[in-house]
Amino acid sequence: MTSTSTHQTRIASDPDVPLVRITREFDAPPEKVFRAHVDPELVARWLGPRGLEMTIDTWDCRTGGSYRYLHRQGDEEYGFHGCFHEVRPNELIVQTFTFEGMPDGVALEKLVLEDLGDGRTRLTSTSLVDSFADRDAFVASGMEVGVREGYERLDQVLAAG
Amino acid sequence: MTSTSTHQTRIASDPDVPLVRITREFDAPPEKVFRAHVDPELVARWLGPRGLEMTIDTWDCRTGGSYRYLHRQGDEEYGFHGCFHEVRPNELIVQTFTFEGMPDGVALEKLVLEDLGDGRTRLTSTSLVDSFADRDAFVASGMEVGVREGYERLDQVLAAG
Repeated sequence: MTSTSTHQTRIASDPDVPLVRITREFDAPPEKVFRAHVDPELVARWLGPRGLEMTIDTWDCRTGGSYRYLHRQGDEEYGFHGCFHEVRPNELIVQTFTFEGMPDGVALEKLVLEDLGDGRTRLTSTSLVDSFADRDAFVASGMEVGVREGYERLDQVLAAG
Repeated sequence: MTSTSTHQTRIASDPDVPLVRITREFDAPPEKVFRAHVDPELVARWLGPRGLEMTIDTWDCRTGGSYRYLHRQGDEEYGFHGCFHEVRPNELIVQTFTFEGMPDGVALEKLVLEDLGDGRTRLTSTSLVDSFADRDAFVASGMEVGVREGYERLDQVLAAG
C-alpha cells in the first residue's frame, strides 16, 4: 500500500458551448504541476497514453511561444502543434492545439491550476472548438483513455520529483 | 467617381456557437490582402478604427509567432496580444486575441481568404469565445465601427500599394 491516493479524471461536455472540461486533482503543489507542463523533459514523460513514444520538436512554453511534438506507436506517427497564448507561472496556460491528421481543426485550450493547500492541486483543462459535432467526435475518439493514462503517468512524475 | 466600389462589412452572430463571423470583399487579390495582414508596416496603417494611433511592439505573423500592439487615442492606451497558431500564405491565419483591459478573456480567430478571380478576394474572419454572454457583449461594445472603418482603411492601403 502506498500513500498516493488514486484520483479520478472527470471529463464533461459542456451543454451550452462546444467545449470539453477535464478536472483532476494531484498530490503535489501547483508549482510542481506547472513545472511538469513547462519543462519539455518532464512533459515527454507523461503527456499522452501509455505505450507511445513522444518526441518533442519544439516546446517553448511561455507567453508567445509555440510547440510541436510527435507521438509514435510502432510504425504510426502522430504530429501535434500549437502556440502558447499566455503562460502565468503556477496558475494558467492558454494555448492552441491541432492534431496534424486533421490540419484544419483547432482547439483553444485553457489550463487552470488551483492550490487546494496541503500540497494538493486541482487542474481544470478546457478545450473549445467551433462545432458541437467536432467536439463530440473528439470525445468519442477515445481521447478519454489518453487523458486518464497521461494523468496517471503525471502522478508518477510528480511522486518521483 | 472612382472605380473602387464600396463593399459592405457583414457581421453576424452564430446562432449555435459563441462565434462572430465577419465577411468582407476587397478589390485586390488574396496575395495583397494577405500581405496587408502580415507586414507590420501595412498593418499599422489600417487595423482598427480611424483616429487611433497604432504602435506595434511585436508582429511576427508566421506559424508559432506572436504579436502585441497598442492603440492610443489621446491619453488612453489599449493593449492587445496573441499568438499565431497557423499562417498559410494567401489563404489562412489562425491566431488568438486578448484585449488587455480584459486579461482573462481570449478569442480564437480564423481568417480565411478566398480568391474570387478578377483581382478580388472574399475575407471571412471568425472569432470564437467560450461564452455567449461574452460574445454578445463584444458585439454590443461597438466593435462593428472599428471593424468597418478598419476595412475601409484597408481598401485604401490596397489601392495605394
